[in-house]
Amino acid sequence: SRSYRIAVLAGDGIGPEVMSEALRVLDAVEAKFGFTTTREERFVGGAAIDATGHPLPPETIASCEASDAILFGSVGGPKWESLPPDIQPERGALLPLRKHFGLFANLRPGVCLPSLTHASPVKNELIPNGFDVLCVRELTGGVYFGQPKGREERDGEPVAFDTMIYRKSEIDRILRVAFTAAMGRGKRLVSVDKANVLATSVLWRETAVEVAKDFPEVEMSHLYVDNAAMQLVRRPDSFDVLVTENLFGDILSDEMAMISGSLGMLPSASLGKQKEGGLYFGMYEPSGGSAPDIAGKGIANPIAQILSTAMLLRFSLGENEAAAAIEAAVAKAIDDGFRTGDIATGAAGETKVGTAAMADAILARL
Amino acid sequence: SRSYRIAVLAGDGIGPEVMSEALRVLDAVEAKFGFTTTREERFVGGAAIDATGHPLPPETIASCEASDAILFGSVGGPKWESLPPDIQPERGALLPLRKHFGLFANLRPGVCLPSLTHASPVKNELIPNGFDVLCVRELTGGVYFGQPKGREERDGEPVAFDTMIYRKSEIDRILRVAFTAAMGRGKRLVSVDKANVLATSVLWRETAVEVAKDFPEVEMSHLYVDNAAMQLVRRPDSFDVLVTENLFGDILSDEMAMISGSLGMLPSASLGKQKEGGLYFGMYEPSGGSAPDIAGKGIANPIAQILSTAMLLRFSLGENEAAAAIEAAVAKAIDDGFRTGDIATGAAGETKVGTAAMADAILARL
Ligand SMILES: CC(C)[C@H](C(=O)O)[C@@H](O)C(=O)O
Ligand SMILES: CC(C)[C@H](C(=O)O)[C@@H](O)C(=O)O
Repeated sequence: SRSYRIAVLAGDGIGPEVMSEALRVLDAVEAKFGFTTTREERFVGGAAIDATGHPLPPETIASCEASDAILFGSVGGPKWESLPPDIQPERGALLPLRKHFGLFANLRPGVCLPSLTHASPVKNELIPNGFDVLCVRELTGGVYFGQPKGREERDGEPVAFDTMIYRKSEIDRILRVAFTAAMGRGKRLVSVDKANVLATSVLWRETAVEVAKDFPEVEMSHLYVDNAAMQLVRRPDSFDVLVTENLFGDILSDEMAMISGSLGMLPSASLGKQKEGGLYFGMYEPSGGSAPDIAGKGIANPIAQILSTAMLLRFSLGENEAAAAIEAAVAKAIDDGFRTGDIATGAAGETKVGTAAMADAILARL
Repeated sequence: SRSYRIAVLAGDGIGPEVMSEALRVLDAVEAKFGFTTTREERFVGGAAIDATGHPLPPETIASCEASDAILFGSVGGPKWESLPPDIQPERGALLPLRKHFGLFANLRPGVCLPSLTHASPVKNELIPNGFDVLCVRELTGGVYFGQPKGREERDGEPVAFDTMIYRKSEIDRILRVAFTAAMGRGKRLVSVDKANVLATSVLWRETAVEVAKDFPEVEMSHLYVDNAAMQLVRRPDSFDVLVTENLFGDILSDEMAMISGSLGMLPSASLGKQKEGGLYFGMYEPSGGSAPDIAGKGIANPIAQILSTAMLLRFSLGENEAAAAIEAAVAKAIDDGFRTGDIATGAAGETKVGTAAMADAILARL
């Protein structure tokens, strides 16, 4: 039977508790669709700092290297906040993982289901049917990794600098991911840049215009990043796919996630180069953070972790039926009124549940 | 009697029509408070391109140099959108003006009056009392002007780069503007950076911690820019003053303006170094754009331009009473139910007005 290896990095905060629910769901689809996974659970983030002194220990990297994909929980918390940035859980684990595995394409769905518009901070009448945006963020370039980056003394005072840099091929490949995604959806793509100020954005925009020629069915438009930050607030449902560079994607995808109102339901995928056969090595994680304030209480929404598992099945294992089954079961559980605290209103027809009971509801609908 | 010089650059789109209302209000406070202004109207933006071929002609700069302040309308429109970025109305006028006059401190109030929460895209229950944020954006540094910026060929492909750079003294001076503003308001300051990724942000944060020592009464906190983009959506009323670097300020201040729901009411000030006597050379302009779609129809909200004039009176001329009188008259006109289309609901007690009638309502309450 088909068999795969997954590195499981649950991390900190709510990570472990939502991860165990996701693994229960994975067990169920394995049984149902006839494949198996070998899972290696490894330390990452604050948990790894506590155990080994480093947020991304070599054994964790080795385990990821030996796997078909990484299922990631979340990292960080007040306990490690005063460490130097380089060894903090988030930065010290996420950036090296992205760079080491060349995970240049970050796919972040920003979905507000029609039944959950009340949870969005945006007025219901602006999003009568909810919305469904896919944000495609370049994840290994730009000002995150550009050199030179640092500090020196000039004219007797400290001067600090970062370099925002893009090779054309880096822009080209992320745009192709976005155009391809758009082809499988609403065929509308908004490319976000700051071409009125940045040289990197001028190259970005030129490349977008070129790549667009290979996708004549996709209707592409350009937005400046400041305008995009405005339109996301006022008209989130006008977007289909949005593509942008690393730093802008960091800001806009988080803004979009907050606007969806259901941070606890949003998965993400960070993909490397496509392999032969169409699959990707990738890392899959909830869009939200480790939520230390509610960790250990059994009330966190496990859906983001469960849907991240579905993305893993689709993009890294090619188990598309299992992925679709999970997504359908999640949608059904929501339709049937199951609500964790983050998305509950107290309205009639809702059943308020905790982490495990939400997973139970999903399992029952698989 | 006290006498001043003002360079009046109305620009494009709704610029000229809201500017003439602002000048009527200026006439009225001059008469009432006993001072006079000499006004030089000059071309800028698309209008200047059409007249002279350049968005910021030398005679416009000369007129600004000879003035105490610049009252600016807005620039840009579809007619000039396909020009190369450097000579486009927005970029080709705004960036050189900021650089030439050293306008490093951009003050952008983001106000949602309690009576106008319906106009905000954010749910009323999240902002029961509206909100009042002041965004302080560094305006002459960072990735906007940093060198090197450009493009070259490497390994047979184009590579583009921008440099985000800050001297400590540039960070120090904008932080002092923000702390001083906070002292005159709610004494809470959020400093926004990306210190987990950017060297410039690490220097920013260090400097903020140092400057904070000179303002012990101000409660300062730090937010990462991605988190700030989220909090602005969900809890705009939790902010008092927000300070950040140029690019982040571009994105966040526009996001905040959209969240306020009353773009047509938000003024801005871009200030240079404080002069002896406490005044500034500055440029004052509405936060919104030239709104070509409604230009010439007499329906644009003139309040942003009128409140920009009030800021000019306060910061550049020291005519504080006149400034306060304008602000009070605007608040009274809103209280009395006068509404341009952008902020109208059709509720009982509202009088729907156009550009000139809104200015009339304000003039009647001076
Ligand atoms: C922790 C941080 C370095 C990271 C980023 O900026 O990419 C995070 O905000 C994210 O979006 O995954
Ligand atoms: C036109 C553009 C260069 C400018 C900027 O990015 O500063 C504008 O967006 C603004 O905020 O005034």
